[in-house]
Amino acid sequence: MHEKMETVLATVMKQVTPKDDERAKMNALAKKLERRVASASKRLGVKAVVRVEGSVAKDTWLSGELDVDVFMRVSRSIPRESLGTVCLRIARKATEGSKQIERFAEHPYLEAIVEGVRVNVVPCYAVKRGEWLSATDRTPFHTDYVNEHLSKRMRGEVRLLKKFMKGTGVYGAEIKVGGFSGYLCELLILHYKTFTKTLEAFAKHRQRIVVDIEGFYENRENELLLLFDEPLVVVDPVDRARNVASAVQTQKLYNFIAAAQAFLRRPNAEFFYPTETTAFTAEKMEKGLKNRGSKIVFVVFDGIKAVPDVLWGQLYKSQRSLRKLVQLSDFKILRDLAWSDEKNSGMFIFELEDCCISPVKKHLGPPLDKQKECEKFVTKHMNSKDTVCGPYVENGRWVVLVRRKPTDVCDLFRQRLEDGGRSAGVAEGISQVLKKGFRVLANEEISDVYETNAEFALFLTEFLQGKPRWLESRSTRER
Amino acid sequence: MHEKMETVLATVMKQVTPKDDERAKMNALAKKLERRVASASKRLGVKAVVRVEGSVAKDTWLSGELDVDVFMRVSRSIPRESLGTVCLRIARKATEGSKQIERFAEHPYLEAIVEGVRVNVVPCYAVKRGEWLSATDRTPFHTDYVNEHLSKRMRGEVRLLKKFMKGTGVYGAEIKVGGFSGYLCELLILHYKTFTKTLEAFAKHRQRIVVDIEGFYENRENELLLLFDEPLVVVDPVDRARNVASAVQTQKLYNFIAAAQAFLRRPNAEFFYPTETTAFTAEKMEKGLKNRGSKIVFVVFDGIKAVPDVLWGQLYKSQRSLRKLVQLSDFKILRDLAWSDEKNSGMFIFELEDCCISPVKKHLGPPLDKQKECEKFVTKHMNSKDTVCGPYVENGRWVVLVRRKPTDVCDLFRQRLEDGGRSAGVAEGISQVLKKGFRVLANEEISDVYETNAEFALFLTEFLQGKPRWLESRSTRER
Repeated sequence: MHEKMETVLATVMKQVTPKDDERAKMNALAKKLERRVASASKRLGVKAVVRVEGSVAKDTWLSGELDVDVFMRVSRSIPRESLGTVCLRIARKATEGSKQIERFAEHPYLEAIVEGVRVNVVPCYAVKRGEWLSATDRTPFHTDYVNEHLSKRMRGEVRLLKKFMKGTGVYGAEIKVGGFSGYLCELLILHYKTFTKTLEAFAKHRQRIVVDIEGFYENRENELLLLFDEPLVVVDPVDRARNVASAVQTQKLYNFIAAAQAFLRRPNAEFFYPTETTAFTAEKMEKGLKNRGSKIVFVVFDGIKAVPDVLWGQLYKSQRSLRKLVQLSDFKILRDLAWSDEKNSGMFIFELEDCCISPVKKHLGPPLDKQKECEKFVTKHMNSKDTVCGPYVENGRWVVLVRRKPTDVCDLFRQRLEDGGRSAGVAEGISQVLKKGFRVLANEEISDVYETNAEFALFLTEFLQGKPRWLESRSTRER
Repeated sequence: MHEKMETVLATVMKQVTPKDDERAKMNALAKKLERRVASASKRLGVKAVVRVEGSVAKDTWLSGELDVDVFMRVSRSIPRESLGTVCLRIARKATEGSKQIERFAEHPYLEAIVEGVRVNVVPCYAVKRGEWLSATDRTPFHTDYVNEHLSKRMRGEVRLLKKFMKGTGVYGAEIKVGGFSGYLCELLILHYKTFTKTLEAFAKHRQRIVVDIEGFYENRENELLLLFDEPLVVVDPVDRARNVASAVQTQKLYNFIAAAQAFLRRPNAEFFYPTETTAFTAEKMEKGLKNRGSKIVFVVFDGIKAVPDVLWGQLYKSQRSLRKLVQLSDFKILRDLAWSDEKNSGMFIFELEDCCISPVKKHLGPPLDKQKECEKFVTKHMNSKDTVCGPYVENGRWVVLVRRKPTDVCDLFRQRLEDGGRSAGVAEGISQVLKKGFRVLANEEISDVYETNAEFALFLTEFLQGKPRWLESRSTRER
């Protein structure tokens, strides 16, 4: 192994492995939480098997980054529709007095901050393997599978992989991130054995990556290809019909591949512990936006209410629709992104070559062999007020130069979002918010928001730089 | 037949058929020219068979639009390189005292204005059918073939077709026009029998049109498709290897098809006798250019020398190269055209959505699986002065936002044409002219040229309207 690599990995390994006192504290907390949830469910008259799952149960958690997942397995007699609400009530009771945040995966669950540690209280059904009723039913089986197969050495490798993914921004299965889950990391180490070999496998990725630890599809590759169409397929060892990596966004997969390639070429602890971004001063930001050359347009709205996973689903869906709208209106998008503080404010951000485009465009008509359509086209445009030139024949079809509207992307947003933007494909939840009002700001017009919102300031600073963080630090070193 | 159609065709037929006195005058002129060319060649010691060919010999000329083609068939002992020069000398002698213009097809020939009639004196070799040495050798065979097969009635139909093509701007095989030759019109009538049936055949055109009067390729369609790849193929009855329509530009073919469709739907004498365009006043033109919305850029140069066919070949070739240059520089072209008065001035004209484009563009790098190229790309752009944002990963490849130069199409022309523009694909002859100087004018900056050049003024007026003339008159009628 690369000498530098060895040093880097040894250092990181030391830092991510939980210390003894940390373990003791964690164990005490886990036990306490199990007890509390069990007694709360008893008091509320719900029969439940309570057990800590996740990284704590599998001993793959990172020192200093403790997350406790407490699962309550309940009877199939509770209807699916009320599973969430029933268990939310238990969870709220069990973590009374702590800060509580409602979260949403397939059904709602509770996040609470207990003794400074993030705790998730999640319901699932007590079912036999394969008879899944809800998505979380598999979790206890995942815990058991990993504990049975993952050696102590491998748990260290999982820690390295998780920390690398966190440092490069691809860790986390929540909708906002769309990255790699902890269980996915564990399966990758089970398959590739070490952190380095996992990175090597992804670095040399060409088309799809397929991992099938249990060999469910041995000699039946075609079946596998028909079942899963994602670029990364990791067959769940406890459920052959499920791709553990199905929620990994293509963009995150590519980011991981690029980071893996870069790390293998130049091993550095920065990949695991990236330098914190410092937001530009307001002056620097304003100057940067003025001199950038491109135009950045912000659609800003307040008053969002949905829980994060729902919110991000709506934001991403709306962003994709708006992207299409902007492209179909002939504006050239360089980059685009959605942003939210998850509490109140949301934003769609488009970086464009230009805000304004020509008031004239070429409008292609039918080919000459469609005579009826041609007659209609010519008659319509011949004396139209919007016709700038023509109609004339070009490359075997009728063509006309016509006035284009709108020519300013800000007007486009104002016009199409005024009624909530449902017709432009904005998701229902966001549409409700937009109806109450929104602002369209271009370039330095965002300064007010920038100066008053530190979280957004950090985000925008990173957006303007646009480099992966690990590359940012390489450029600083080499400059 | 459509009643209106009948009336229109009868009227036009009467106008295009030469009157008796016109015929008599023509015959006398033809005889005189034959005599003069014969004696001139004798005096210069060149053995030649002299005969009038073309529309006069085939009785397919249009009343009031007489052109006399005098051919001199010379011995194969004259080398090909000197055929032009030798016969030019004879032609100059034979038309001494008349206005003379040197023309060029495959080799040079002379155009002279004799008694107000355009006369072409053209050399060719006296060869047997099939043993062609130069392109004009076939002409006497064409005359004989047409005279043998074309009935008197059909000659009238040819006159209608020619006049229709002239009126709709698609007649003439010279490079400038790239349209239908007289011989091509005759073959079309031989095949389709009447003017109307010819129009009907083209009007319902879907893919290729193939006419093979002599049935050279009967049951050997595949061979024909391999030999000829033009969208209109009319096999020469005197040379099965030649497509008589090979010089017809696709654009002219489509213009003819559109005109044929329109005429069949709304027969009108305007197609044959279009209203003359009246140039806009200077004020109207200036206002029109200012309010148009699009941007029109003119590259203006003086001092051209080449004969028209050579000149237009160079202009079109250069125009195609510049079109590519402009497109590759990311400007959006609406239309473009070359113009010349054939005496001194030339122009490349580009109508664009905008003169100026964003100073920032997205530059796509290699896909992630090309690791070496990626490393080079990232290292190059990471700290480059021209990098605005990134590099970052998008859709599985590295991407960077970079400064674009130039952002003004006028600068692009000035920079790339300063040295004559050979590297931008400008033809040698035009390049020599550009080296001595040129101007790049945008929109109303062309006003000076417009006011001082009536021919250009007419051209620009039509260019701005952009409609086929037959459609122009329809819009006026229906408005």
